[in-house]
Amino acid sequence: VDGPEKAGLSWEQSYLPSFNLGGIFPPLATPFSPTQEVDYAQLEGNLRRYASIPFRGKHCPPSFSMQAPVRSLPATEAACRHTPHPFAPSPATQATIELTVSMAEAGADVALVVTPCYYRGAMTTAALIHHYTEVGDASPIPVVLYSVPANTGLDLPMEAVITLAQHPNIIGIKDSGGDITRMGLMVHKTRQEDFQVLAGSASFLLASYAVGASGGVCALANVLGDPLCQLDHLCRKGQWQEARDLQHRLIEPNMAVTRRFGIPGLKKAMEWFGYYGGPCRAPLAPLSPAQVEELRSTFSANGWL
Amino acid sequence: VDGPEKAGLSWEQSYLPSFNLGGIFPPLATPFSPTQEVDYAQLEGNLRRYASIPFRGKHCPPSFSMQAPVRSLPATEAACRHTPHPFAPSPATQATIELTVSMAEAGADVALVVTPCYYRGAMTTAALIHHYTEVGDASPIPVVLYSVPANTGLDLPMEAVITLAQHPNIIGIKDSGGDITRMGLMVHKTRQEDFQVLAGSASFLLASYAVGASGGVCALANVLGDPLCQLDHLCRKGQWQEARDLQHRLIEPNMAVTRRFGIPGLKKAMEWFGYYGGPCRAPLAPLSPAQVEELRSTFSANGWL
Amino acid sequence: VDGPEKAGLSWEQSYLPSFNLGGIFPPLATPFSPTQEVDYAQLEGNLRRYASIPFRGKHCPPSFSMQAPVRSLPATEAACRHTPHPFAPSPATQATIELTVSMAEAGADVALVVTPCYYRGAMTTAALIHHYTEVGDASPIPVVLYSVPANTGLDLPMEAVITLAQHPNIIGIKDSGGDITRMGLMVHKTRQEDFQVLAGSASFLLASYAVGASGGVCALANVLGDPLCQLDHLCRKGQWQEARDLQHRLIEPNMAVTRRFGIPGLKKAMEWFGYYGGPCRAPLAPLSPAQVEELRSTFSANGWL
Amino acid sequence: VDGPEKAGLSWEQSYLPSFNLGGIFPPLATPFSPTQEVDYAQLEGNLRRYASIPFRGKHCPPSFSMQAPVRSLPATEAACRHTPHPFAPSPATQATIELTVSMAEAGADVALVVTPCYYRGAMTTAALIHHYTEVGDASPIPVVLYSVPANTGLDLPMEAVITLAQHPNIIGIKDSGGDITRMGLMVHKTRQEDFQVLAGSASFLLASYAVGASGGVCALANVLGDPLCQLDHLCRKGQWQEARDLQHRLIEPNMAVTRRFGIPGLKKAMEWFGYYGGPCRAPLAPLSPAQVEELRSTFSANGWL
Repeated sequence: VDGPEKAGLSWEQSYLPSFNLGGIFPPLATPFSPTQEVDYAQLEGNLRRYASIPFRGKHCPPSFSMQAPVRSLPATEAACRHTPHPFAPSPATQATIELTVSMAEAGADVALVVTPCYYRGAMTTAALIHHYTEVGDASPIPVVLYSVPANTGLDLPMEAVITLAQHPNIIGIKDSGGDITRMGLMVHKTRQEDFQVLAGSASFLLASYAVGASGGVCALANVLGDPLCQLDHLCRKGQWQEARDLQHRLIEPNMAVTRRFGIPGLKKAMEWFGYYGGPCRAPLAPLSPAQVEELRSTFSANGWL
Repeated sequence: VDGPEKAGLSWEQSYLPSFNLGGIFPPLATPFSPTQEVDYAQLEGNLRRYASIPFRGKHCPPSFSMQAPVRSLPATEAACRHTPHPFAPSPATQATIELTVSMAEAGADVALVVTPCYYRGAMTTAALIHHYTEVGDASPIPVVLYSVPANTGLDLPMEAVITLAQHPNIIGIKDSGGDITRMGLMVHKTRQEDFQVLAGSASFLLASYAVGASGGVCALANVLGDPLCQLDHLCRKGQWQEARDLQHRLIEPNMAVTRRFGIPGLKKAMEWFGYYGGPCRAPLAPLSPAQVEELRSTFSANGWL
Repeated sequence: VDGPEKAGLSWEQSYLPSFNLGGIFPPLATPFSPTQEVDYAQLEGNLRRYASIPFRGKHCPPSFSMQAPVRSLPATEAACRHTPHPFAPSPATQATIELTVSMAEAGADVALVVTPCYYRGAMTTAALIHHYTEVGDASPIPVVLYSVPANTGLDLPMEAVITLAQHPNIIGIKDSGGDITRMGLMVHKTRQEDFQVLAGSASFLLASYAVGASGGVCALANVLGDPLCQLDHLCRKGQWQEARDLQHRLIEPNMAVTRRFGIPGLKKAMEWFGYYGGPCRAPLAPLSPAQVEELRSTFSANGWL
Repeated sequence: VDGPEKAGLSWEQSYLPSFNLGGIFPPLATPFSPTQEVDYAQLEGNLRRYASIPFRGKHCPPSFSMQAPVRSLPATEAACRHTPHPFAPSPATQATIELTVSMAEAGADVALVVTPCYYRGAMTTAALIHHYTEVGDASPIPVVLYSVPANTGLDLPMEAVITLAQHPNIIGIKDSGGDITRMGLMVHKTRQEDFQVLAGSASFLLASYAVGASGGVCALANVLGDPLCQLDHLCRKGQWQEARDLQHRLIEPNMAVTRRFGIPGLKKAMEWFGYYGGPCRAPLAPLSPAQVEELRSTFSANGWL
């Protein structure tokens, strides 16, 4: 027995239209208290503030699910009470499967599964196809592939994506690499499948829609959720000129809260827009005053502050 | 005295609207005879065949201008008799300036100047700004920057692009890196300047237009010139859905004649579409029969053969 | 209160000569049963077989300590009953500290602490110095830095190494990068400190000794422990010509059980030399028969089989 | 007819013992006048000053032979009047062959042939073997392979080195990559051939000798020729402890005149040791006063100034 049945899905479940990933998902930042404990009350507060934004769903932070799986469950439950959301487990195949089960029990609708990477030299196309096939077979919820070379040093090979797109319980990919040729080719080569491509960053969101992507999982959505949902809307309506102007103003702020200043930059910017940012856990270091100033000017120069 | 005047341009010349780069440019493949000599008659033949395609201009092959500058002039002249075109000189600043003069004398309208790269560790932002400023000051024809990290191992830094965009004799950039975030940011940060951004490859042409590019210099235009001009046309008219379908069918053929099989693949494919391809010079090796087959199936699977 | 006292060490403990790292350490492979459970009996068996080899110590496998810390303790204890050994914890600073405490309680003499890397873009020199200083301050056992760019995508910067070498509870570095210039410079720049440099691979062991390293933590020691201890001995005695001949014969086998075939190759080779290798956990895939053959011929061509 | 005979070599010439590369070669810096012309008188002056240093030979600067071949001949002749030396031509196979002929006529004893790299994606093992075989067949003087990934982005593959080592007119390799595992493996895999391995940098010279290299082509030899020849001497005599102390003091100065400050740093340092350094050609920029200070302190902190 293979496929969804092995995972305990009935025929109806497995052939229902897959979970619709069209739209914007914020990968929620994990709020910590001043003593660096996860602050569930602040997470609830942020979720309340996000409730008015037309997000398609939310994405549980990797620091919960991937790096400290057991302790992440309460926070995941808090997130789950509000909205469907994918998440990001990791390394060994069996541990990843167990995590999809835990997350499904906590109410997650979709599992966002990052490429295993510690032994990246051994992560051949065949090994990655095998890993995701096992996870897809066993996961009680649909699986979204997650390729993020800046963190993992590994691009999920195109050949693996094309093969895995045929799996009935693998419904899409979040690709954070920013290679727009690859985005277009993934859409093109999976056009016969029920498979959705998501941009993994706000910097190339419009371009991704232009080549056929369905949505985006964007760190910047923690800060500028409404403009990102508006960009999604403009692209869907074909208002490309307005979309372009909006996209242009989002690139620098996005780069500032990702590549340039990372999580500490993201949390600082969240505070300017009414969300709880709070401290980061070591080894992530807080921004210096000069960096805060640079971050702020990036938002103000593009008309956001 | 600085700027264009130093280069012998009158006030009128330097303040005329810059050369319009909007559209598609093929970087012409250099035809060799069976004895590996440049075959000017075959070049003329190809140019005649290209005459019916609405290219914006043509781009003299780097193998002429950059790697064997002196011998390239006759071929450049042949190309110049037919159409405006940029070209690609190289390494030391003074030698690059001399080459812009030679090329202008041969009839080139624009100089496409690749980043110097042999001592890439020393190619700081400041050094690159200085290099291009000197070239821009002295070149009798407008200069287009050329960043091609796959060949040079060097991305022209964003800060250098923004500074150089203000130079009156630097009118644009050909960027072959494929980083669409960077393309969009270049358009955005130079929006106050008379500066045009060109995609350096057909793989990300539509996405580049979507974020504000003016055109493309695409190897694939040697083979599929008409479809690329049609893609340019669809993007300009806002017919994004048709454009997307066309773009999708061009990605694999383009990758096959660039990254996958390089110049030998390009020349082989040219022959299938009525152009002269001919042999490559060593150390470039001809394709094996299996590679030819793979190349061909890439074109046929996408409906071009 | 800072430094070792914070970690509960008395003055005497902290100023005793540091743990001597001179010699060869195998990073123990984790034995799995056919059902992919950790097989402690087989681990004990391997440890018994290693008992006759003059290793300086043993290094608990990263798959225990870093990727599944809690379940690793029994195996760690098994290892600890036999010999002193460092180990490899990971990501957030506080979790790493907790792991050093657990490992010390399980009997480890030294903590081998890999660079945090998931947010590698944020891992500046300052952030890494802060991380290791916190860990060094709090760890009840001496800390050895561990830089392994092939797995983490991150080189611990030289400036961080030089600063951290001054910490009284940081006694050395395992460097797996293979940059011999860096190895020599680390020895040279820390010559005033009580700081020991270990080669992280058998491929460059002799060269590391030649520039002043103290020993090596080498995957190949799981297979060819005696020849590696002999190489250590020859280098210490200044018999460089014999050492060179031996080193030459170890390079290809080492590359085969690391870069080329990874853990699956290592475990297969262990079986040929009388150890328990056993299966790997997915997503690591077993070798194909052709790969086994290639692996075997690498050992036989160099006179080991 | 293949091999040396094709190149006009008699049987005796081709079967004589090959040119002995054992020892230190400076890759001569090209002296420019204040107006950036090649200054042959200063070159002669430097060569006179180097005459008392027991170099094995000299290596004509790449800026002569590779980047401006025709104009380089007089300087090459100047160099040739003093000492045997290899040199570095480049890109297309036929042009490289012509350059070996010119250089042989100018008196060069050995041709140092860098890997072609502009179309590096096409530079497969097979293409590189073909290129060097053609050059080896046709060159009137012995050929030394030259792999310098920092400049070319390309490592000459081990398999190509092993194959080419069997060619009777290819006598060695200069490897500047700094991968000591590779250096050792090259020595080991070519031990049956008349093939010599040279370190391409002073930073890993001792380690290279330790694994079996014959000598080094080291930029730093332009500045500290005597200490480098002394290091060569100590290694040959087996005085490894003295060699290590000397090697340690050379790493930082070497990094300063290569990776850190490049040619401008090298030329500045030459002046402190009694040689003519002079200006660099754009786009290489002169050092700032702060950089000069940093460079100087690198030499003084290691006891050279």
